[in-house]
Amino acid sequence: MENSEEQQKYRVRKLENSDKSKGFIELLQQLSVCDSVSDKEFEDRFRDLDVLGDDHVIGVIEDEASGKIIATGSVFIEKKFLRNCGKVGHIEDVVVDSSIRGKHLGKRIIKFLTEHARSMGCYKVILDCSVENKAFYEKCGFQQKSVQMAMYFP
Amino acid sequence: MENSEEQQKYRVRKLENSDKSKGFIELLQQLSVCDSVSDKEFEDRFRDLDVLGDDHVIGVIEDEASGKIIATGSVFIEKKFLRNCGKVGHIEDVVVDSSIRGKHLGKRIIKFLTEHARSMGCYKVILDCSVENKAFYEKCGFQQKSVQMAMYFP
Repeated sequence: MENSEEQQKYRVRKLENSDKSKGFIELLQQLSVCDSVSDKEFEDRFRDLDVLGDDHVIGVIEDEASGKIIATGSVFIEKKFLRNCGKVGHIEDVVVDSSIRGKHLGKRIIKFLTEHARSMGCYKVILDCSVENKAFYEKCGFQQKSVQMAMYFP
Repeated sequence: MENSEEQQKYRVRKLENSDKSKGFIELLQQLSVCDSVSDKEFEDRFRDLDVLGDDHVIGVIEDEASGKIIATGSVFIEKKFLRNCGKVGHIEDVVVDSSIRGKHLGKRIIKFLTEHARSMGCYKVILDCSVENKAFYEKCGFQQKSVQMAMYFP
């Protein structure tokens, strides 16, 4: 169990335009390929997503001591005809700073994203993960459903 | 190999507002739960997606003889910060009328959706499928990447 001080210290908020200077891109680099992103590229993409409002939300946790972004994850809302014009939340790009463990930051991020999907009226929320990360997501309340297939473009 | 007549006969086009009366919802019902959708619900959802333009495209094949929609699939474009502000195509809700087999309609739909994702500048296109459908997607050029996890809301 954690005290309310920790809860406050590690609260999840939405990504802000100024988070580029707080190590947001460097954090993503721990997850996958992400070279330098210029300020303009960042601002353009931030604006692309801002237009989508609640249909695409990026959550971050900022370490108040260092002023660095130490955890993030995104969710976007897909609108279907299926399931009586239902909606599905897709979680992507979840990463916690490798130097910070045992603070349940990943769980906080996932809770923030799933609660957002629920509040948007989604009937489910889904994500793809490696076999190694399955146990973590099971602890968060997810169950394995199917397999993910990918095609990369040259 | 197929002749150009078949290619023309089974060409993929974008979903139109009038496709509700051509059995589009009944086709989706072959895939998953989808009760009755009123004309107003359909039109509202159609408009929601139309606003997204090329960022959310639904392809359909109409059987010219019967005037029925016999195959469909959707793709939406996710905009990331990862991969140098890259984009990913997400394929969803692919279904071919169970009474029509051996016409490669599924392959046509997948090709239409992957080509759309490629033309939008995506670095990859992904989808989730059952283990039973893996072989079909492998024939379409996909490879298994990871596992899909889901959380359903009550």
